[in-house]
Formats: sequence, structure tokens, C-alpha cells
Amino acid sequence: MRSFIEYSPNSDFPIENLPYGVFTSPKNVEKHIGVAIGEWILDLNVVSHLFNGPLLKDKQHVFKEEKLNAFMGLTRPHWIEARKTIQSLLDVTNTILQNDSQLRERAFVKQREAKMHVPADIGDYSDFYSSIHHATNVGIMFRGKENALPSNWKHIPIGYHGRSSSIVISGTPITRPYGQTLPVDGAEPHFGPCRLMDFELEMACFIGGPPTKVGERVIAKEAEDKLFGFVLMNDWSARDIQKWEYVPLGPFTAKNLGTSISPWIVTIEALRPYIVDNYPQDITPFPYLRHDDKFNFDIKLEVDLKPESSPVATTISRSNYRFLYWTVKQQLAQQTITGCNLRPGDLLGSGTISGDTSDSYGSMLELSWKGTKPLRLLNSDERKFLQDGDTVILRGYCIDENGVRIGFGNCEGKLLPAVPIQE
Amino acid sequence: MRSFIEYSPNSDFPIENLPYGVFTSPKNVEKHIGVAIGEWILDLNVVSHLFNGPLLKDKQHVFKEEKLNAFMGLTRPHWIEARKTIQSLLDVTNTILQNDSQLRERAFVKQREAKMHVPADIGDYSDFYSSIHHATNVGIMFRGKENALPSNWKHIPIGYHGRSSSIVISGTPITRPYGQTLPVDGAEPHFGPCRLMDFELEMACFIGGPPTKVGERVIAKEAEDKLFGFVLMNDWSARDIQKWEYVPLGPFTAKNLGTSISPWIVTIEALRPYIVDNYPQDITPFPYLRHDDKFNFDIKLEVDLKPESSPVATTISRSNYRFLYWTVKQQLAQQTITGCNLRPGDLLGSGTISGDTSDSYGSMLELSWKGTKPLRLLNSDERKFLQDGDTVILRGYCIDENGVRIGFGNCEGKLLPAVPIQE
Repeated sequence: MRSFIEYSPNSDFPIENLPYGVFTSPKNVEKHIGVAIGEWILDLNVVSHLFNGPLLKDKQHVFKEEKLNAFMGLTRPHWIEARKTIQSLLDVTNTILQNDSQLRERAFVKQREAKMHVPADIGDYSDFYSSIHHATNVGIMFRGKENALPSNWKHIPIGYHGRSSSIVISGTPITRPYGQTLPVDGAEPHFGPCRLMDFELEMACFIGGPPTKVGERVIAKEAEDKLFGFVLMNDWSARDIQKWEYVPLGPFTAKNLGTSISPWIVTIEALRPYIVDNYPQDITPFPYLRHDDKFNFDIKLEVDLKPESSPVATTISRSNYRFLYWTVKQQLAQQTITGCNLRPGDLLGSGTISGDTSDSYGSMLELSWKGTKPLRLLNSDERKFLQDGDTVILRGYCIDENGVRIGFGNCEGKLLPAVPIQE
Repeated sequence: MRSFIEYSPNSDFPIENLPYGVFTSPKNVEKHIGVAIGEWILDLNVVSHLFNGPLLKDKQHVFKEEKLNAFMGLTRPHWIEARKTIQSLLDVTNTILQNDSQLRERAFVKQREAKMHVPADIGDYSDFYSSIHHATNVGIMFRGKENALPSNWKHIPIGYHGRSSSIVISGTPITRPYGQTLPVDGAEPHFGPCRLMDFELEMACFIGGPPTKVGERVIAKEAEDKLFGFVLMNDWSARDIQKWEYVPLGPFTAKNLGTSISPWIVTIEALRPYIVDNYPQDITPFPYLRHDDKFNFDIKLEVDLKPESSPVATTISRSNYRFLYWTVKQQLAQQTITGCNLRPGDLLGSGTISGDTSDSYGSMLELSWKGTKPLRLLNSDERKFLQDGDTVILRGYCIDENGVRIGFGNCEGKLLPAVPIQE
């Protein structure tokens, strides 16, 4: 496959990828749905009339929407037909777009001239806790080595409901929050700026397919048709606030201060060449959580930290999606097992993705081992947790045995200083 | 104040109430916004042109929407003007509607001929844990009398994020869920139908006002302009599933199986005559949680349980909103303290509202004291938890010193048997 759009072999967005996003640009102030190709965006709003396959010819309106929900709400065969249509339109042998200079002019926008937006109305966002290394690390730090993993952990893909309103697109700054903490056990709580501000390296899956009904279950074996595609996610976390508030109902204000996602949704179709063995599960889960097929992905993940005072970013973690113990099919089955309904555009976060070595951990909490082992950055700064002005950049990409590379672009955000409270 | 619409003195919906809802009827299959008056609904879609006050004359379109979000997204002065306009239109001295038989015919729908719908797109739903009696009861049952209240409880209005998609309107049946439980501590978990199915007597507040930005806080003193009005809520809970899953991230599938709300939103303006002293707080909270004014409400709450086999419902609990330790202003301040943004239509649940006597508890868990004290119903049935076919009916109403009564209507739901899982 070769496109008439030229791009570097290191591009995140070759013709094999074709992730979906929502953008505005100087050409169009209204939000349009687009697909990334090299350094360009193909504006699907402009070329919606070219989706003439049997399934989509009566559904072209979904490409005219300002969000991806309507397209996500179709079915996998629709998504596959859309992908084939776009690949064909971009193929070097296809002249429809290539030789129509007026249409080409309208249909392509430079990514660097576009502003990206949250690509869907996220009706509900859940976040899981599916990395065994992350859960074990946190367990050791807070409960000791003996009881590191909660007793339910290998039976249930543990998750909780998060906040949809504060999901923001990559590039949006995050403000260090004020909140309550308990600096000394048994003493009085303190109110002030968070002192243990952290990132969490995650990926998140957008739900697609027609909405389900309240009371309907989607077991793991049937989950695939509900999975649209993935983005990178930084689940910013105020560790000291979390520690004081989370018993007994879980994290709340420590997490709802902002959650960043990358703008391009890489589809399951694009990720299929990078499927690898599922993580071995030493306790056989209940049947509703079982699926026989491989549904784990070799997605290389990196975290850069760039202090405000330095032009140099340091790669502080190299992890991989494949380290997750629970698959996204199992997460989805857990989400719905008691009858919770799904809507296209819902988002399932993976939880922090940590590997089994100390350079592959997905949070400052683990990388600095609760602040006991400061990280040294390339500019010689030290970090236990995030400092004001730090920019955190998540990256993810896959390479197959033939060297074909697809990527997720960046998920980045800068931490701004706390804003004093007026009372 | 007297309306030309006649109603009984025991009606939940006198001219002093005027709650908002969304309905369809044989006359209109599209969703319309309406206001309850006696046994009727005034269809605001039909009379939107009569909102000619200075603030609303250019905003009449909000009454043509299919949901209340746009109206909620205006400001308190708009809401007050709308209330005055509706009260005037319904007043016995006003002839505009009263004497226009054609308009009257179109503008009024019998409640019993209408179908009610969830009144707003609920972007995010949070649930709190603000009844000191409920939290204490649960604490005694699960952690013993010494440590009944978590140490953070009197400092933080504890809350967590819930599931928006499965919020359903009163009358929607709820299916007993399947899920994982741990019948014996330390033994193997079990998968099957929930055995400890419960209701939770709650109220919930819809958020109004223009959306806030990520990073923006709304402290308790400034919270009032964000509070639109209240509904009754039944936060159906699978206790055995909850117990096994909730450590460490909080309740998840035990709660997202369905949450019922009553269809009529009773506004803060209607509730003002029923404001009473706030619950005494023996630990002074941090300044962001303080407000000097009274913002507690004398709302009498009742729970009826009607077995399928019996025509007779038994009132199993009599509680009151005023038993809440934390006010809704304090809940809202907590929701936003780290910068979580709000959207009109967001919903804040109060948590189970239990009084200090055993006949005022807001859940079967407490009423039967974990199953140790079965309740006897009027038909001589016994109940520890809910049985298949049970209908739970929540009611709420206020009466002021002059005998003026406003109510919330019913929030009811029937528990259907579990549906076996196909694997």
C-alpha cells in the first residue's frame, strides 16, 4: 500500500493507520471529522460524498457531524468499509482525489494548522486498574509485600467510574489543584495545593456500536463489536489528596481535575497486525470474562518529562500496552456484567500501564518509589513528583515484523502552578 | 395564590410547586418540556411564546428543546422569571390561557396520559455519602462501633463518580443482576444472581447555570447559583457484589445496574419556604466548605414496599432530607475543589438518607440490620433484602406552617428476576 501523500517512514500516520479525530482550522471554524495521513488531515466532511460503499452510501451524514459518536454508533462492517474507502481514496493508484486539485485543496489540512478537539461526546468514562505490575507496586507501597494485590484483583478487572466533563484534549494545560490532605496519620487534615502531583500512563478505548439497553450484558466473547479504537491517556492524579479521600468510596477529586487524551483514535482494524498473546492469567476467570482469541497489543509506550526551564525532555519511562493483565474485552464484560448499558463514545481507561522493571513504570509514584528514589533528568534536575511548569508527553507506537509503523501522536500537558483560592 | 386549574389540597403539584419535567403524550410523540399543575401538565413547548419577560423573551427557544439542559444552563434570574410567568399564566385572575379554549386544549395534557422521560442529558452523575446516620450504621455493621465513621468523614463530604447511562425514569423495571460475590471470607468467589438486592432512599440535585471551565472552583458560598432543583432517587444496590468489588476503588458494578429518579424537578425556588437549620457540624470544615446561610430542607420522605403477590404496600421507612450532615452547597464545593468543571444537567446524589431511629433508615441493609432483623410487611411477608417482584416506591413532600404542601410525585421501580446468562 502506498499513498500519493508523502510522509516519512517514521510518521505515526501512514496509510496503514488512518486514525479518526475532530478538528477546526483556519479554513473551517466548525468542527469537522478528519483522518490523519502523514502531516495532513483528510477532511471527511468535505469528502463525505465519496463514501459510496453498500453500507455507507446512505450513512454519509455521519461524516458531517461535529463529533464521532454517530460514526462510532454504526457497526464494525461499516467501520471496515470506511477504512477501505479512505485507503482507496489515498492510494497512489486512485485519481479521484489525487487529480482533482480543487477538491484536494479543500479536503486536506495541514495538521500543524489545525486545532484538535475531544473527538466524541463521552457519555461515561470508566477507569480500570488492569496492570498487575502497577497494582502490585502500589500495593507494596501502601499495604506491604504480603498483601500487595487485593484479594479480588485476579478475579475482577477492578474499575471505577470517572468524570467525563474534565476529559481534555492533548495540549490543554492542567492546573495544580488545591485540596485536603492528611500530612500526618492521626493528625489534623491540611488544605492547600497538592504536593504529590502525578501523571498516569494509560490508554483508553472508545466504545462503538449501537447503544445497549439497561439490563443488557456484553460478555468478553461478544465484546469485540463494541470496541472502536484507542487513544493515549494521562490520568493526572493528586496522590496526597487521593490518599486522604479514597476510603471508602474510591478516588474522587484527586482524579477529576483533568484527564488528557491524545486526539487521534487508532482503530482496532489498524491495530490488528500488532496483536500479541494475552497476558497469562494464573487464576481462570469466570466464564463471562473468558475469550479464546488473542486481544492484547504490542504498543510501545514512552513518557517524556520536560521541565519549564529546560529545552530538553527526558524519557522517564518505556512501557508497553501488552503488560496489561486484563484485556479490554474483559474490562468491557466487567463494565456491563450487572446490566450497565453502553453508549457509543463511552471511554474505558486501562489504568496505569507499568512494566516489570523500574524504568517501565507508568507513574512518578512508582518511578520515584513514593519519593524515596528521585529521578535525575537530563538537565540534572531531580524529580520525586511533578513540579510546576513540567510538561508530560506520552507517546505510543507499534512496529510489525515488516517494519510497518503506526503511532498515536502525542498526549501532552503542562502542569501550571496552583491558583490561590479566594474565600 | 390560586390557579384556575383545580386540584386537591393533597396534590403534590399546587401552583406553589411548578416542577419541570419532560414528557411525551398521545398528542405529541416528540419530547416536550412541561410543568406539573394538579393532575395536569402545562406544555411549555406550546406556550413558549408567552415567556415575554425581559430575560426570557429572547430565550423562548429553551422551552422548545427536548431536554431541560438549555433552560438549566441559563441563570437563577431567568429561572425566577420563568416561575413568575408560569404562576401568572396559571393564576385564576389571568385570562390569557384560561379563556383561550383552543390554546388551553393544546397546552394541557393529563399526567395520566403522558409518559415521562429522564428530564436532562446527565453529563456526569456523582453520588455522595452525606447522611451521618447512614454512614454510622454502615460503619458499625462492617467495621465495628469504635471505628464506625471513617476518619475523613467529618472533614470531607465523601462522594464518588457514578454511571450516567443507567439513570432511568421512575416506572422503569430493574433486573436483579448477576455478578461476583465472596460468600465466605477467604474462600473462592461465586458468580450468580445477586442475593442481597437493596434500594437506597436518596435525593439528587440537578446542576444549572452556564458551564464552568476545567480548573474552576465553586466554593460553598457561591454554590447556590449552580443549583437548579431536586428529584427523588433510588440508587439500587447489589450489596453482596459491592462488598467483594469495592476495595480499593469504590463501588462499580454494584451500582451501575440502574438508578431511578422521579420525573419532576422541584426547583430551589419552590423549596425555599421549607428551608430549615443546617445539621450541626461539630468539626468546623475548611473555609471552602463553609456557608453562613441555612440551606437544609424539611422534605418528608417515605419508602413503600409492595410485594408482587399483594395489593398492599407497606411503608417501611419514614425519613427526612434534613437528616443530611452535609448540605448540597458543601457537596458541590467538594465536587469542584480540585477544578472539576460542571455542565448544566449534571446530577449530585445525596447518598442514602437515614434518620436516627430504626424506622427512618434509608435501605434494607439498615432496616433489617444486615438481615438480622427481618421486616414484617402488612401482608405478613418478611423481608431482609428485596425479593423478585417487589416494587419500591419513594415519596417526598413538604408542608409549611400554613399547611401549603408541595411534593415530588413518586419514584418507583419493580425488581424483576435475574436473567440467566448465556455463555
